[in-house]
Amino acid sequence: MKIHPHPVSILAVGSMAFDTVQTPSGKADAVLGGSVNYFSVAASFYAPVQVVGVVGEDFPKTHLSWLSERKIDVTGVQVVRGKTFHWVGSYDQNLSEAKTLSTALNVFEHFDPRLGESHRKSHYVFLANIDPVLQQSVLDQVESPKLVACDSMNFWIAGKPEELKRTLKRVDILSVNEVEAQLLSGHRNIIKAAELIRAMGPAVVIIKRGEYGAMLFTPAGTFIAPAFPVQSVVDPTGAGDSFAGAFMGFLAEAGADRKMADESPHEWERLLRRAVLAGCVMASFTVEDFSLHRLMRLESDELVARQHALISMITI
Amino acid sequence: MKIHPHPVSILAVGSMAFDTVQTPSGKADAVLGGSVNYFSVAASFYAPVQVVGVVGEDFPKTHLSWLSERKIDVTGVQVVRGKTFHWVGSYDQNLSEAKTLSTALNVFEHFDPRLGESHRKSHYVFLANIDPVLQQSVLDQVESPKLVACDSMNFWIAGKPEELKRTLKRVDILSVNEVEAQLLSGHRNIIKAAELIRAMGPAVVIIKRGEYGAMLFTPAGTFIAPAFPVQSVVDPTGAGDSFAGAFMGFLAEAGADRKMADESPHEWERLLRRAVLAGCVMASFTVEDFSLHRLMRLESDELVARQHALISMITI
Repeated sequence: MKIHPHPVSILAVGSMAFDTVQTPSGKADAVLGGSVNYFSVAASFYAPVQVVGVVGEDFPKTHLSWLSERKIDVTGVQVVRGKTFHWVGSYDQNLSEAKTLSTALNVFEHFDPRLGESHRKSHYVFLANIDPVLQQSVLDQVESPKLVACDSMNFWIAGKPEELKRTLKRVDILSVNEVEAQLLSGHRNIIKAAELIRAMGPAVVIIKRGEYGAMLFTPAGTFIAPAFPVQSVVDPTGAGDSFAGAFMGFLAEAGADRKMADESPHEWERLLRRAVLAGCVMASFTVEDFSLHRLMRLESDELVARQHALISMITI
Repeated sequence: MKIHPHPVSILAVGSMAFDTVQTPSGKADAVLGGSVNYFSVAASFYAPVQVVGVVGEDFPKTHLSWLSERKIDVTGVQVVRGKTFHWVGSYDQNLSEAKTLSTALNVFEHFDPRLGESHRKSHYVFLANIDPVLQQSVLDQVESPKLVACDSMNFWIAGKPEELKRTLKRVDILSVNEVEAQLLSGHRNIIKAAELIRAMGPAVVIIKRGEYGAMLFTPAGTFIAPAFPVQSVVDPTGAGDSFAGAFMGFLAEAGADRKMADESPHEWERLLRRAVLAGCVMASFTVEDFSLHRLMRLESDELVARQHALISMITI
């Protein structure tokens, strides 16, 4: 059977992992994690997703079947001999930064994303935080992407700056956190940092600020969105990736792509701002439990209610 | 000559000081500082202010005459034998928290605010960060305050918790920063902290978040305002007090007081939110230079332009 991607389906490439996480709220052992899992589940509330990733033989089939049930196409997930990527980390009381205790890349070390025919036809592409060389390899394989977003991290910013800059020339949207933006731009001031990063390629830059929300920088200006304030943060892992998933899902559902930036810049800006809020809301659910547990039981009416609540918190 | 306070004039009681501050941008020696000075100058863009404070004989008359030129009534400033309060502090690269190097209270140690007849008739009262016993003494002297706001800090929260709680029962609005809110409430989570503080008395709680703006908690809900993102932060000293000044000035100019909370709660909420934005904008100017230097040269068209710019950054 040949699978034709839905016109608004999103291709997401990144890590699939087991996470072992200790936070002040408790501990989770070898639970489902990885950037592309958080991204996909979040995006799936808005649009179909095609995942490309790699897992070991130890990856439970139940995880894949659960993803499949959520409009997430997992035919691009390679199951190879060996063990699945396993991250072990902890958060202290302030919950703002993870301390990595160990990283076993395992089968992820030799990840080489090969896209099937249906993946190559994707219009929406999200390159999670992987080697920028692989990010470019994915873009080489996609036939005519209409909107490309990517993520990165200090490891690549410091380790492969030239390759990352080559990736940035080919993406429409970059999302990074404040420290990453400072490192990438060489500037402490976030406004200047965002300006400099936009000059590297991405017309749209999102700077994630954890519990303080996110800033959106576009040709039309700056938008500052607060995080939705939750009563209890259990585990911040995956907040950024689920932010990106809802953000990209929102744009895909709306059929918004880079052409819109020229053709209807006002509408493009409006959708980008709404998409950032969707991202903030999704991230706020993610942090309420370990792993993807909160998203697994998230109902769409809860999502809508919190989106309205967040809007009421910024309305003057 | 008898001075009758303007119906919207604000009585402000707090410290007047010399600050010596070192930041990554440079150093300022014995410049004009103190909570009530930042508050008054900021508020004076919106409404007349009456200051009650104490200085030593070393306090330059030019400072007082400069304040007078800005609709700030300084007849309540006592000039006594001795030296003016002098604070010495520094900020490191991240500019988020001041490190106090020395505090010479000098004449401020025996500050005992005595209100003149015109001060007692004030409708708007701001109690800057001083001993809660003195805050209550001021309230005892004011005849019929229509809106009372106060500030506090860790020193009093930890040192005189029962006195501070007595003050809180008598104020409409409390502004504190995140750490202070946590200490005062005994709760790490800001939402819970704000709820608990509101239960202590103030119907309106503002939690200041430095470079991330401020949160407003009222009976009607929560409002989250971003800081106006400035390109260069020179000295964060006085940001919180000038925030409070513009906030209170905005409400006084609008004639908004606690009666409005019952009589037109929707309009009250709208004005509170606008006032928070006014506070964020004023604070953003304050941090662009040492001392009150930026506010001294601030033009009202700059103020209006930045207020519009901030609104555009939260509009969806």
